Amino acid sequence: MFGSSIGNLFKITTWGESHGKAVGVVVDGCPAGLTLSEEDIQIFLNRRKPGQSPYSTPRQEDDQVEILSGIFDGKTTGTPISMLVWNKTARSSDYSEIANYYRPGHADYTFDEKYGFRDYRGGGRSSGRETIARVAAGAIASKFLNTLGITLQAYTYSIGPIEINEKDFSKIYDNPLNMPDSSAALQAEQLLQDMMAAKDSIGGIIECEIKGSPIGLGDPVFEKLDANLAKAIMSIGSVKGVEIGDGFQVSTAYGSENNDPFYIEDGRVAKKTNHAGGILGGISDGSPILIRAAIKPTPSIFKTQSTINKTGENINIQIKGRHDPVIVPRAVVVVESMAAITLMDALLANMTSRMDRIINFYK
Amino acid sequence: MFGSSIGNLFKITTWGESHGKAVGVVVDGCPAGLTLSEEDIQIFLNRRKPGQSPYSTPRQEDDQVEILSGIFDGKTTGTPISMLVWNKTARSSDYSEIANYYRPGHADYTFDEKYGFRDYRGGGRSSGRETIARVAAGAIASKFLNTLGITLQAYTYSIGPIEINEKDFSKIYDNPLNMPDSSAALQAEQLLQDMMAAKDSIGGIIECEIKGSPIGLGDPVFEKLDANLAKAIMSIGSVKGVEIGDGFQVSTAYGSENNDPFYIEDGRVAKKTNHAGGILGGISDGSPILIRAAIKPTPSIFKTQSTINKTGENINIQIKGRHDPVIVPRAVVVVESMAAITLMDALLANMTSRMDRIINFYK
Amino acid sequence: MFGSSIGNLFKITTWGESHGKAVGVVVDGCPAGLTLSEEDIQIFLNRRKPGQSPYSTPRQEDDQVEILSGIFDGKTTGTPISMLVWNKTARSSDYSEIANYYRPGHADYTFDEKYGFRDYRGGGRSSGRETIARVAAGAIASKFLNTLGITLQAYTYSIGPIEINEKDFSKIYDNPLNMPDSSAALQAEQLLQDMMAAKDSIGGIIECEIKGSPIGLGDPVFEKLDANLAKAIMSIGSVKGVEIGDGFQVSTAYGSENNDPFYIEDGRVAKKTNHAGGILGGISDGSPILIRAAIKPTPSIFKTQSTINKTGENINIQIKGRHDPVIVPRAVVVVESMAAITLMDALLANMTSRMDRIINFYK
Amino acid sequence: MFGSSIGNLFKITTWGESHGKAVGVVVDGCPAGLTLSEEDIQIFLNRRKPGQSPYSTPRQEDDQVEILSGIFDGKTTGTPISMLVWNKTARSSDYSEIANYYRPGHADYTFDEKYGFRDYRGGGRSSGRETIARVAAGAIASKFLNTLGITLQAYTYSIGPIEINEKDFSKIYDNPLNMPDSSAALQAEQLLQDMMAAKDSIGGIIECEIKGSPIGLGDPVFEKLDANLAKAIMSIGSVKGVEIGDGFQVSTAYGSENNDPFYIEDGRVAKKTNHAGGILGGISDGSPILIRAAIKPTPSIFKTQSTINKTGENINIQIKGRHDPVIVPRAVVVVESMAAITLMDALLANMTSRMDRIINFYK
Repeated sequence: MFGSSIGNLFKITTWGESHGKAVGVVVDGCPAGLTLSEEDIQIFLNRRKPGQSPYSTPRQEDDQVEILSGIFDGKTTGTPISMLVWNKTARSSDYSEIANYYRPGHADYTFDEKYGFRDYRGGGRSSGRETIARVAAGAIASKFLNTLGITLQAYTYSIGPIEINEKDFSKIYDNPLNMPDSSAALQAEQLLQDMMAAKDSIGGIIECEIKGSPIGLGDPVFEKLDANLAKAIMSIGSVKGVEIGDGFQVSTAYGSENNDPFYIEDGRVAKKTNHAGGILGGISDGSPILIRAAIKPTPSIFKTQSTINKTGENINIQIKGRHDPVIVPRAVVVVESMAAITLMDALLANMTSRMDRIINFYK
Repeated sequence: MFGSSIGNLFKITTWGESHGKAVGVVVDGCPAGLTLSEEDIQIFLNRRKPGQSPYSTPRQEDDQVEILSGIFDGKTTGTPISMLVWNKTARSSDYSEIANYYRPGHADYTFDEKYGFRDYRGGGRSSGRETIARVAAGAIASKFLNTLGITLQAYTYSIGPIEINEKDFSKIYDNPLNMPDSSAALQAEQLLQDMMAAKDSIGGIIECEIKGSPIGLGDPVFEKLDANLAKAIMSIGSVKGVEIGDGFQVSTAYGSENNDPFYIEDGRVAKKTNHAGGILGGISDGSPILIRAAIKPTPSIFKTQSTINKTGENINIQIKGRHDPVIVPRAVVVVESMAAITLMDALLANMTSRMDRIINFYK
Repeated sequence: MFGSSIGNLFKITTWGESHGKAVGVVVDGCPAGLTLSEEDIQIFLNRRKPGQSPYSTPRQEDDQVEILSGIFDGKTTGTPISMLVWNKTARSSDYSEIANYYRPGHADYTFDEKYGFRDYRGGGRSSGRETIARVAAGAIASKFLNTLGITLQAYTYSIGPIEINEKDFSKIYDNPLNMPDSSAALQAEQLLQDMMAAKDSIGGIIECEIKGSPIGLGDPVFEKLDANLAKAIMSIGSVKGVEIGDGFQVSTAYGSENNDPFYIEDGRVAKKTNHAGGILGGISDGSPILIRAAIKPTPSIFKTQSTINKTGENINIQIKGRHDPVIVPRAVVVVESMAAITLMDALLANMTSRMDRIINFYK
Repeated sequence: MFGSSIGNLFKITTWGESHGKAVGVVVDGCPAGLTLSEEDIQIFLNRRKPGQSPYSTPRQEDDQVEILSGIFDGKTTGTPISMLVWNKTARSSDYSEIANYYRPGHADYTFDEKYGFRDYRGGGRSSGRETIARVAAGAIASKFLNTLGITLQAYTYSIGPIEINEKDFSKIYDNPLNMPDSSAALQAEQLLQDMMAAKDSIGGIIECEIKGSPIGLGDPVFEKLDANLAKAIMSIGSVKGVEIGDGFQVSTAYGSENNDPFYIEDGRVAKKTNHAGGILGGISDGSPILIRAAIKPTPSIFKTQSTINKTGENINIQIKGRHDPVIVPRAVVVVESMAAITLMDALLANMTSRMDRIINFYK
């Protein structure tokens, strides 16, 4: 309840259930004058669309976005941008069974306890389909940031134990797993084949790199850029960990190696290393921002599992339906979108930090 | 700027600089009728007070809290609780040097860029002293939660490579490092002696366990309990990573092992494992909530470091002043406090989730 | 920008332009388990639908609501309720002229200055059609409040100088002006005929009465119930004044007459008078809550007016299109809706005010 | 509860009770680099200080402000500014009686119902002393706005039936009633003498004029500038009505007279009249902004009144203590402060409205 909005100045509000009529988002606070079309949104949505590889649910959805407001003459007007995607192949019958039991690793039980009942069809509000709304909003934030010279790129860092060994961004879309390393991708595909054969699933790690950020984004104390990134990323279903820069590796590092020395390069301030991941004291320092998210294995597996039903009996279940053996590849664009939304919000807020700039603005 | 508040219904607003007159917090949204005294707060503040061990800054501050409002006849009145701690031994002279250069690993550079200048004395607003305000507020949240049967316990999980091997909560305050494992604590103390001799510092990991939480705390989508915990914990200076439950280990786990099977135990719902760390779909499931935070090594080290000064020259520096060789032990209570603040906020918000409960409430 | 949401726990976000594809609202924070259908919403929307009287714009819109999410098995699920109304008879051609000049009394000029350009079709975002979204959300809030025994009734208090002399709520929908006084309504109809003949328009006053409110809604200081009502009501386009209870009359009253004496009636606390309008210190006192809103005359009049065009020339204009000679009757349900939304939000927030009630809730 | 903050980007949080240790405010979101001293604040506080005229409570408080954070080298640092005023002459004994009964026109009863008990000393949190915090914050906002060429002036428009006939701002501080009309002030003083003799009190109206505002402040829909002004002003204790521009007079006006025609004057856009009070569609239009607030008579009167006590008996009371026969003069600076706080917040938010300006800002 009441948790479907995020952002201070660039605020998005999402809505929709997996097998309801549609899913959508209202984006408020996008500045006027940004050139924007449905095509800009569609490119992002296509990156998470199902049915594009053997490792993705075969549910057939074209996920075509419709913009309902906030655009005039091809540009944003400064008023809310309402977007939706109709759910075309909702097949509720697949889910009639899960109405009566609680799938392990899912939100079925907690929803029922919190709300008294739930829309059980396809996971309802807690379905991965909710991320369509995030990605549509993220497409806008990304376009905005790109206009200011800021670029974001998320990719699969690992699937199970298979990690990337190179970061060749040109290869990310050459494989169905969104890995910037073709040979790692091949190994991971083999692993996924094994998972599917075993009726099981596997987790992985997504990394996101942001380049070109101005210095000064984020505010001290609670609105730190990394704190807001952590919230935005952790709010994605199935994320169980978030790291900035070196992340958990700092726990075994010495100060003398973890500190990034400043130096002057071509008359500009630079850092010799970037263990901090581009954020110091919660504020962007101009270096690339690096975020990492741990994604749990898809909880919907075809293997027999033990659980309970609504009447309190211990039972065994076999989940039906259409499910991905791994969440990671389709979540890549979701992580990138949430990072973009957070950064855009911080960039707008930062405009008010200094008297001299405000006086200049209103001159 | 504008980032010094956190929380929706239980909202705290902190203020103060390391070497200003005082640091403090305004706690708004604490329900009326909670028995509360300065002693309740002081117990928490004493857990982070400096000068209590050889591994903590020798700055002498008694950190005595003063409650200025919101309490009457020994109970909270429902109005804001304003608390402050005077800075007694502010020694600005120690810091005159750092006015002119940017310490690696610190927020000096980003503050100067964002705000045009900074209160450089002891790190100003980005000092660890800012956490006094968090801990004072956390003491209130903890007292509130305890009253409802919910307990929180944070402790040092590791310092550098030294991890705990047992979790004996009775031992946490028996060693200066707040480890629930005496022998690990001894090893870690030796490591810290080495660090101090080497004029260096080291990182570590803090873990926090919450028991007795009702089911239903947290809201789907952006106000997920884990998302808000991630923000709250990552907003603590020097935290670079946050995990819930198994955290990054889920990336190499199979679905069949990571899913926690539900079962009925003595007529109540239970889970056979708790890889999820007590949160499913962003909502507490009644199992213990487990949070882990990666703490970077203290950036203020006595070793010579290279950096730049404000006029853009590459220089070498040796930091003076009073600094801890490790942040972890004193940050334990800060992590616990931020977790308490987040949980209390979610607990209050959850009261509005169901018609049947609301009708009953207003009957 | 970023101003399309209101509410803390019951939060609505509206979107849409007068001649865009649709207008809509996302309602977040509605408790789960409220019986709700499109019919509940439609009843409210029909109260503001155009073309129902000679004093209302002849624009033909059936304003049929579509609920897209948040309802399952006829009940709210606790997740966002997305609703929209398609704009069926958008006739942009009528408005091509106003693209180039600034209508007096409208937001054309301020939008152009703020955003650089505007969706000029029918006033775009600043059109009265935006209130469809408020009314749809208000229907939900009203249903919620009714379930708890709270009723709201708004009505036309005056049109121009014609004020009501009686408050017979049964007559409100018997006349096209929503007056609880049939003879005043007849006089006002005559006045409106005159206005239309004169190609002019007129203002009026709307009153809203809330009965059955629990004691304790609203919070001291900035979240006072009357402060939030004032914001909610003043945010309706064309409202220029808001009063609670005796309103501006208190300025000439003595304390001895304005104070409402408490007394015990049948063992319950009552007030002998209700000058305060049911709110003391920003908190509901159990008496009826009384709100009054001053509505300006419709700015779109057919009389020739002087103004400027976008190239900075003084010109004369005659506005075309479809316009109401008075805003008041159709705004009645909008005022009632905004009051309902505000009250529901305060009612949810009030659940967290006392320890004893919280302990009892979580028992 | 939780209602002690206001503002989006410029956010203030107040705390303190009438007879607690102190009252104070934390101002977050003030841009860095504003020259600010305690003297700037004190000038504002002195305008509301008690004991300065025969028509003001004789309670002796010097109301000396202390700034505890957020200022360095005489300038704001961008971090929270914490300010407090100690309560020096708290005399709780005066109030021991009112612990047991509910004063008419006060918040005693509603506080007790909402919170279970209350700090009854001098009205506790609902005392007029709470406005010290608003005025201290308002002084900062005013200084900020003045720096940008924006000025605010509030004054007494009427006391009881005595209205001003001229607006000579130079005379406002020449009389104890803050009227810009000396002869009206003399009449009003006579009226107040009568009130005091009759052990009664009287209401009045405060007006506030804002000049020099940029065009574009305020956002469509719910964050309209007038909506936020209405909330800010109505949140002041004892305000029962708020008007913008012509206010309630619009209810009897024709569109043809209420519309303000635009015209070009010396190459700049101007309006021939200003019935709108400087706000169109919720957005400032560059004309002076005019706000009016209705203030109720002081509820604490010395006349005998009937009421109830906590045990539910009908009783007669005579209020003791120190009280003003009229609230208006001391509330003038409070209205001005709340207007300044609201305007500053809108001015900061407006910086993010247009792509072209954002691109230029980050160039």
